Amino acid sequence: MTVRRLTLTALPGIPLVRPGDDLCRIVLDGLAAAGESLQTGDVLVLAQKIVSKSEGRYARLSEVNPSARAVALAAEVDKDPRLVELILSEASEVVRHRPGVLIVAHRLGFVLANAGIDHSNVEQEDGDETVLMLPENPDGSAAALAAGLHERTGAEVAVVINDSLGRAWRNGSVGIAIGTHGLEALVDLRGKADLFGRPLQVTLVGFADELAAAASLLQGQAAEGTPIVLVRGLPRSGVSASATELVRAKDQDLFR
Amino acid sequence: MTVRRLTLTALPGIPLVRPGDDLCRIVLDGLAAAGESLQTGDVLVLAQKIVSKSEGRYARLSEVNPSARAVALAAEVDKDPRLVELILSEASEVVRHRPGVLIVAHRLGFVLANAGIDHSNVEQEDGDETVLMLPENPDGSAAALAAGLHERTGAEVAVVINDSLGRAWRNGSVGIAIGTHGLEALVDLRGKADLFGRPLQVTLVGFADELAAAASLLQGQAAEGTPIVLVRGLPRSGVSASATELVRAKDQDLFR
Repeated sequence: MTVRRLTLTALPGIPLVRPGDDLCRIVLDGLAAAGESLQTGDVLVLAQKIVSKSEGRYARLSEVNPSARAVALAAEVDKDPRLVELILSEASEVVRHRPGVLIVAHRLGFVLANAGIDHSNVEQEDGDETVLMLPENPDGSAAALAAGLHERTGAEVAVVINDSLGRAWRNGSVGIAIGTHGLEALVDLRGKADLFGRPLQVTLVGFADELAAAASLLQGQAAEGTPIVLVRGLPRSGVSASATELVRAKDQDLFR
Repeated sequence: MTVRRLTLTALPGIPLVRPGDDLCRIVLDGLAAAGESLQTGDVLVLAQKIVSKSEGRYARLSEVNPSARAVALAAEVDKDPRLVELILSEASEVVRHRPGVLIVAHRLGFVLANAGIDHSNVEQEDGDETVLMLPENPDGSAAALAAGLHERTGAEVAVVINDSLGRAWRNGSVGIAIGTHGLEALVDLRGKADLFGRPLQVTLVGFADELAAAASLLQGQAAEGTPIVLVRGLPRSGVSASATELVRAKDQDLFR
């Protein structure tokens, strides 16, 4: 009897990542420290923050001049107007706001608080308020890492970049995929049958989001220092798709 | 260097579950078939359907008399009035509806389509339309299974009952926890520091939901026949909490 098994390994010894750092090298060093080497079919899940840091996606609030719109909204949500200016610059739309809460649609489509900009686990220099934004193009970041790893190891791997987001209806943040390469972000089960041969009612599965949530169990949100997780044993189709497939179109969304 | 590793195993050879079946025995047989024995600290994730089936949570549409309210709503959502009657009987509130879509708050608090009632992977007798509802008390089902396993093996394990649900803003269903025992459904990081000693901004993590999503990667939605997943290697606090902690209170929810 075949037993299907999935193994998630938090790569140890990952250093603090700085702009320009080679994520490919960091992944390979982490694998070596875990006693692992890369295999075709592996998936690597990287926390958004280390990708953003390697890409230098920092902003200093002291260098931001808030617009009148940002000043007005900042008063309503009780946040720093310079931060609100940055959030608006990363957003296509404000979805909900109230004191303490600013939920937007990010320019990449994701609905999330503060456009994903935050301070946690971000180095602060000279007492400045330094914040970190999402990567410019997370799918591209994932693809570049997969390509680099292929070049150096010969292994064909998939990469997911994940972030921990709040949700409608449920308490607590969970890991979701903001960038993917080398796997299906969304798995379409149309045409599949259930145990009794009847067509399925649920036809789309948020595959990369489930993977992002799984990795998040090991990444943690505090000072764990384990932002990279190796996932081994996952059945994959070979199809590669963008994480933006997971974004519901606004006109299909009853909760926008 | 300590390497943190999580292993998820889909228990093989799980039979079709019928009302009155002993889930405890089914879990133990599945573990034996996988060559595993239960250890204190293990987590078992069970798909809602096998729990509902063991508890006989079936309904036959032929035995349902739809109310006037159900008939009117059924016309609006283009569904069988008898099914809509059942959905309303399991729901505390209709959250959104339009043709083909009926999203409600379940009496247990979960916001989901059709109150979690469906036909997939449900045996049909005599051409009747048999549907399956969520367990009456999923936390209680999880606790009973954990107690039974403890009695028979001596191991203290946690149990999560998961279901695959649609979401606001994002395409694709993902596994979430509807019943938990022996672990924290929601992990509160208030007071924890980041890598640089600063207090965290994200303070609540949907831990049991991330676990439910992880297990869902192996459970599948079609004819996989692997509704039980053993999770080993997860750090746990020893606190036991209800899955209803994951439900955001209506007055705290901007998307109800």
